[in-house]
Amino acid sequence: MIIFGVDPGIAIVGVAVIEYDGVKSKPLFYDAITTDASAPLPQRLLTIYEKTSLIIKTFKPDAVAVEELFFNQNAKTAFSVGQARGVIILCCTQYNIPFFEYTPLQVKQAVTGYGRADKNQIQHMIKTLLGLSQIPKPDDAADALAIALCHAHSHKMSNILGINKT
Amino acid sequence: MIIFGVDPGIAIVGVAVIEYDGVKSKPLFYDAITTDASAPLPQRLLTIYEKTSLIIKTFKPDAVAVEELFFNQNAKTAFSVGQARGVIILCCTQYNIPFFEYTPLQVKQAVTGYGRADKNQIQHMIKTLLGLSQIPKPDDAADALAIALCHAHSHKMSNILGINKT
Repeated sequence: MIIFGVDPGIAIVGVAVIEYDGVKSKPLFYDAITTDASAPLPQRLLTIYEKTSLIIKTFKPDAVAVEELFFNQNAKTAFSVGQARGVIILCCTQYNIPFFEYTPLQVKQAVTGYGRADKNQIQHMIKTLLGLSQIPKPDDAADALAIALCHAHSHKMSNILGINKT
Repeated sequence: MIIFGVDPGIAIVGVAVIEYDGVKSKPLFYDAITTDASAPLPQRLLTIYEKTSLIIKTFKPDAVAVEELFFNQNAKTAFSVGQARGVIILCCTQYNIPFFEYTPLQVKQAVTGYGRADKNQIQHMIKTLLGLSQIPKPDDAADALAIALCHAHSHKMSNILGINKT
């Protein structure tokens, strides 16, 4: 299955596409969509939508996985991230791609087996799990890979436990 | 000019369309888009997008006006409203409708001439300004009418002052 992981933001959106064969995952693509800070909000949201749409048309993912927001962030950040996230979820929904959310704890546990893993430990595990020659950059792309891997592992667990999770 | 006022939310979106002739405004439509609380987030965002799109196709507005968020709200509310707002702004942008934001203070001042007006005073002024037989319901639709009226008055002031604002 093809999994599209997304780490939303208004200035930078981490995006990653991995292929998971039930045992291993391999990266197909990872990058960051960036928007111009001096551009008006509508233009920034349109850029995010159009680039998300392009990734979907290129890789035809079977699922999209997005991290749930920490609610210890301030309201302004939450609002800003929310606007970008709404556009991304809409885009995936218009292409009928099932949407999954994971908490930061679930992502850490799925990738490293340890819920208190730090950013460095997570990035090293991503490198190992995906057989990369170096730690993926930028951080937002690494985060998107982690979310996609979390969905792959969660899907595997669902299959083992006999839960139909799509 | 036709002005589309929106008061975004994930459960309820206040929507209003007014026609402003440079002197007076008349309401063409006002209502609330509601989404089913038990529906998954992607479906709720899609409903908001599709109904927004339908309003745009029906009334072909020249401008969309949306209220800026109070940042004294909690992060969870801000995040939730943000997702709906992102989808609405995206939809308007895809139809090339210029987007304007107003603070709650600007809306109150534009509608009542008084920045500390309460909800009741605002609703009575909307009724008077638009020649309605009763106060518009629900509150979200009244808020959307207020934002649309704010843009009309702001546009009028811009014209008086010789500022090209569209």
